[in-house]
Amino acid sequence: MRIKVIIPNSSVPFRDSQIKARKSVASSGTTVEVVCLPHGPVSIESAYDEALAGPYIINEVEKAEKEGFDAVSLDCAMDTVVRAAKESVTIPVTSAGEAGLLIAMGLCSYFSVVTVLKSTAKDIEDNIRKYGFNIRCKSVRYANIPVLDLCDTDKAVTAIRSEGKRAIFEDGAECIVLGCTGMSELCGILSNELNVPVIDPASASIQLAEMYVSMRLSTSKYAFELPNKNK
Amino acid sequence: MRIKVIIPNSSVPFRDSQIKARKSVASSGTTVEVVCLPHGPVSIESAYDEALAGPYIINEVEKAEKEGFDAVSLDCAMDTVVRAAKESVTIPVTSAGEAGLLIAMGLCSYFSVVTVLKSTAKDIEDNIRKYGFNIRCKSVRYANIPVLDLCDTDKAVTAIRSEGKRAIFEDGAECIVLGCTGMSELCGILSNELNVPVIDPASASIQLAEMYVSMRLSTSKYAFELPNKNK
Amino acid sequence: MRIKVIIPNSSVPFRDSQIKARKSVASSGTTVEVVCLPHGPVSIESAYDEALAGPYIINEVEKAEKEGFDAVSLDCAMDTVVRAAKESVTIPVTSAGEAGLLIAMGLCSYFSVVTVLKSTAKDIEDNIRKYGFNIRCKSVRYANIPVLDLCDTDKAVTAIRSEGKRAIFEDGAECIVLGCTGMSELCGILSNELNVPVIDPASASIQLAEMYVSMRLSTSKYAFELPNKNK
Amino acid sequence: MRIKVIIPNSSVPFRDSQIKARKSVASSGTTVEVVCLPHGPVSIESAYDEALAGPYIINEVEKAEKEGFDAVSLDCAMDTVVRAAKESVTIPVTSAGEAGLLIAMGLCSYFSVVTVLKSTAKDIEDNIRKYGFNIRCKSVRYANIPVLDLCDTDKAVTAIRSEGKRAIFEDGAECIVLGCTGMSELCGILSNELNVPVIDPASASIQLAEMYVSMRLSTSKYAFELPNKNK
Amino acid sequence: MRIKVIIPNSSVPFRDSQIKARKSVASSGTTVEVVCLPHGPVSIESAYDEALAGPYIINEVEKAEKEGFDAVSLDCAMDTVVRAAKESVTIPVTSAGEAGLLIAMGLCSYFSVVTVLKSTAKDIEDNIRKYGFNIRCKSVRYANIPVLDLCDTDKAVTAIRSEGKRAIFEDGAECIVLGCTGMSELCGILSNELNVPVIDPASASIQLAEMYVSMRLSTSKYAFELPNKNK
Amino acid sequence: MRIKVIIPNSSVPFRDSQIKARKSVASSGTTVEVVCLPHGPVSIESAYDEALAGPYIINEVEKAEKEGFDAVSLDCAMDTVVRAAKESVTIPVTSAGEAGLLIAMGLCSYFSVVTVLKSTAKDIEDNIRKYGFNIRCKSVRYANIPVLDLCDTDKAVTAIRSEGKRAIFEDGAECIVLGCTGMSELCGILSNELNVPVIDPASASIQLAEMYVSMRLSTSKYAFELPNKNK
Repeated sequence: MRIKVIIPNSSVPFRDSQIKARKSVASSGTTVEVVCLPHGPVSIESAYDEALAGPYIINEVEKAEKEGFDAVSLDCAMDTVVRAAKESVTIPVTSAGEAGLLIAMGLCSYFSVVTVLKSTAKDIEDNIRKYGFNIRCKSVRYANIPVLDLCDTDKAVTAIRSEGKRAIFEDGAECIVLGCTGMSELCGILSNELNVPVIDPASASIQLAEMYVSMRLSTSKYAFELPNKNK
Repeated sequence: MRIKVIIPNSSVPFRDSQIKARKSVASSGTTVEVVCLPHGPVSIESAYDEALAGPYIINEVEKAEKEGFDAVSLDCAMDTVVRAAKESVTIPVTSAGEAGLLIAMGLCSYFSVVTVLKSTAKDIEDNIRKYGFNIRCKSVRYANIPVLDLCDTDKAVTAIRSEGKRAIFEDGAECIVLGCTGMSELCGILSNELNVPVIDPASASIQLAEMYVSMRLSTSKYAFELPNKNK
Repeated sequence: MRIKVIIPNSSVPFRDSQIKARKSVASSGTTVEVVCLPHGPVSIESAYDEALAGPYIINEVEKAEKEGFDAVSLDCAMDTVVRAAKESVTIPVTSAGEAGLLIAMGLCSYFSVVTVLKSTAKDIEDNIRKYGFNIRCKSVRYANIPVLDLCDTDKAVTAIRSEGKRAIFEDGAECIVLGCTGMSELCGILSNELNVPVIDPASASIQLAEMYVSMRLSTSKYAFELPNKNK
Repeated sequence: MRIKVIIPNSSVPFRDSQIKARKSVASSGTTVEVVCLPHGPVSIESAYDEALAGPYIINEVEKAEKEGFDAVSLDCAMDTVVRAAKESVTIPVTSAGEAGLLIAMGLCSYFSVVTVLKSTAKDIEDNIRKYGFNIRCKSVRYANIPVLDLCDTDKAVTAIRSEGKRAIFEDGAECIVLGCTGMSELCGILSNELNVPVIDPASASIQLAEMYVSMRLSTSKYAFELPNKNK
Repeated sequence: MRIKVIIPNSSVPFRDSQIKARKSVASSGTTVEVVCLPHGPVSIESAYDEALAGPYIINEVEKAEKEGFDAVSLDCAMDTVVRAAKESVTIPVTSAGEAGLLIAMGLCSYFSVVTVLKSTAKDIEDNIRKYGFNIRCKSVRYANIPVLDLCDTDKAVTAIRSEGKRAIFEDGAECIVLGCTGMSELCGILSNELNVPVIDPASASIQLAEMYVSMRLSTSKYAFELPNKNK
Repeated sequence: MRIKVIIPNSSVPFRDSQIKARKSVASSGTTVEVVCLPHGPVSIESAYDEALAGPYIINEVEKAEKEGFDAVSLDCAMDTVVRAAKESVTIPVTSAGEAGLLIAMGLCSYFSVVTVLKSTAKDIEDNIRKYGFNIRCKSVRYANIPVLDLCDTDKAVTAIRSEGKRAIFEDGAECIVLGCTGMSELCGILSNELNVPVIDPASASIQLAEMYVSMRLSTSKYAFELPNKNK
């Protein structure tokens, strides 16, 4: 099985820093290829960034299908242009934000999301209402750290842990979904310290993609019709 | 007051066919300028089209602010990249789909939307859940007509009226929101025949934009933060 | 266009203090007439007050239609007998509470209401659930000031600003809807100080009424049937 | 224990036709007094009727408390001015519509309401959303019979049974709540024929009032503050 | 009328401590018999306890019907195996948790539950979502006292009152539903001190059972089909 | 990795008929052991059956943890005693009904469930509301076939396909979740014929369990506290 992970920004250093984590998630028989975009914003921190990256994301998704990949994992907790991506191909497309929420709900009654910035938090709140999961969501908090600063692990862990604790003890969360795919490396540490399940959305998305392929399931084309591309 | 109407597709004939209707909506003191996109799909009939048009839409929104427009009306019932557009500027941005729903809810308890295609219906359903208005929505129906075929007025009226009647008599709608901005010219006819209010989303969006300007209100920047554009 | 603003209490001084603000909202071609009730409570601060004022409100609404007004704006954030008012005539009836909420939702994802008293807050919460907007509402707060004391501007601004800040910083509101039509004069000051949109419901209702008239829309009589008045 | 049943219309014949049914509901130690209003509409079939009856209803509720009644049952499935009535006194106030819904939900997962007219159906739908019970409600249907024609038992049973069957077999209702207090006499017949519980709201309201008195419970004055009556 | 109260644990001392309170709730003509289980956990403090007690509960419910009881009241605020119990017989089955919530909602707009332990709180939250009442529920709090320690009245009252106050003043509850049937004796004291209605679920359940019997109503067998017991 | 699949009924023939399907789902490195219960109902077709099977299910779950299994998959679409099972151990517990819904929601906006009997449909509806997924669920339909008759493949496929088509074309489902774990063998056929994704809940549950183990995630013990077992 071959899964293409599309990081929807144009930062090669960010991509390179994530490859190891992404590859380590997959089962033994699965090949994971990690790409970022040739153009567009260097990080996705707003719906504005998402809109600018949109065409490049779609192009990568379509290319993945042509290259024979079995599935695509969109590597962003904001679920960038996820409806468009699901429409554009017939292979399964998973997305980190959505996958993280689905996986979390099997482990708890109430989750919170901890993301990087206020702007990403607002966008994720929109998604959660769109998915109808707001009844299960206690809060969407943010650590106030730009995506590309997550490499300062100590600072990042401190800030995320602090918001995670507030989510648990003030808001009632029973599980934390990380609200950025740049936090994969921090997930283990945070899990140990917060004492509730902490979900890495990037990993959740890859594993969910694997599951769909192995169950021979794909996106409902009744829900996500193939668009007319010849206009 | 000057309002820029951005039709988020690249069809000049479509734009030209809508100018008169758009200009006729505005109050006497208001100037309405109608533009379409220089590139991108000739019609927006899917989230796929929306994603491809995204950067061009944002560019037009930003240009409108620089040109000194008082507000922008996004002329699409699918609310194309509306969060990004609202983030990108400080002037008010209204969007046809959202405006149509808001205006409808002041006239009824339950509305239905009648749009062009299954693919637009699915996208509009996503938006309605995202806005939390699903509790007020009886159905999202579609007339099965591509946007650019709406110029065949008779055929269009027949198909939309039929779905409108089903919305009213089978689903319980008390008001119909048209789910495409290409239906402005048909709104009067449909209103007379369906005997419930029929909302033209393009007009609703322009009028809502005017209202915000005259009330000195704009999009909450606490909700839609200005993005970092220098990256 | 002629719009009748019905203040649903019997306080002539209150009415007189609001006339200037109401007239200033309308477009150049619109005539606004502001009336209060001949009898009934001097302020509407509870559902009890609303019930006692009910017949007088309906009488004024019906009179407005006979006098040839194009629309009625019910000037109360508690939406006093709004279903009855909408049923009673065929011209559009808007109501300050409902209009304020609709207008707010085009500017933010989450709003809070700041009203005068606990009793008005409870009633407004009922309305918000009835309209299905609770998913978008972060809180309904009250400044603990009776309606007729709002003329002490300094005291009023201080108390409302304080609750507005709590709504924004503790509850997560991105926009404030004022929960009393006696706060029109304070709206500008509050807007400047709170740094989010602050909606005056009285103005929103007049503007929405104008919009309905200019779009040739009126209340769905399928939703709000004309009652049998001959019994 | 003494319970006052307030029929919120001015029809003495209607009141007289209901006395026997109301008195038969109470426990042995309970005295039930049934009154109607001295003025106002002869039947409550719209929010318009409700608004006109409002002051008379409140007056009767306040009188009941002064006369030493232990509780009031508002005898209308539309829950006429129920918030105002609960505010106005400290004794428990139950209301037929609300009581019928509460009692029904202990017997099923999903109920439907069958009421008299479209106008009452629309009002009851508003209430159900206001109470937050829409998630448990499959439909609000109407038999298209004015209240005062319910005395034609055969016609009434035929029409209500037909809508009840549609509620059960088309909509999925597991229990029927009658949507008018003038249907008490028909409840037994309908129950037998529909084979699901059929709730008479008038009886439910009296029994709920008895329960509150015997449990020494009353309306939360924190939710329904006593209004300022001296203005 | 004869009602069987089934305490779904095996603690004879607990049962004996509750008999007086249960019998005192019933009307003069009603006989109340209080039983506990022959086996199973000595208290129900988790879904785990509930699962272990399940078959014994069902057995007692079926026995009650064979013994000619008119109704069963399941005496647990966690609503232990309540769907199974309702399925198993044709007589009405009420359950303390569900009954407490229904009775509370007639007295307020927003309630909170105060229960014994975190584990019971989590289970009750599940039930409240299942019943669709979460829109009316401000919080489910717990006093951190095991069921069998409730006999230390002073300690129990202190802890429950403290959480009740937080529910009212921090969360916005207007009514408190006690989240354990072992709190009946404390209900009066708490009511006086908290100044909002405090509902004893055990009493609510018995009274609701009486109401159903006297109204000749029973559980909808369309909702809760009699199971095939011969397999 | 070792996963224990617990079929919560006592039918050895049913268990034997499912072993092949269950084992075929797992990844190459995973051992799947399939057990049924030593006692209890031969099939789970009601909450009644679930309650009777409860203690045996819990016993098997606890035994699985002691035997060193890495996860448990509860093999029933009704999610039998799933809260109790999750409480009872620290290893991940997945359940077929819940897993099927989670997996489906990544592939569509709206799903329907097609189960065996009305009684299982009612129970599954309860679960869907409890999980808060009702906003995504178009219908829960049943094929009217007892579990143990599913071995008549032709009859089963015909009946399920018919309900599946109604779910898609009448109710608007975009994906079908099978509502019984005895339908695994039929899933492929149904998928081909219905042209939307068809989810086998038994497979979904095993794959989800594998995912949790490989991601080192387990049930939140903050949500599902270990119960006190020494009482």
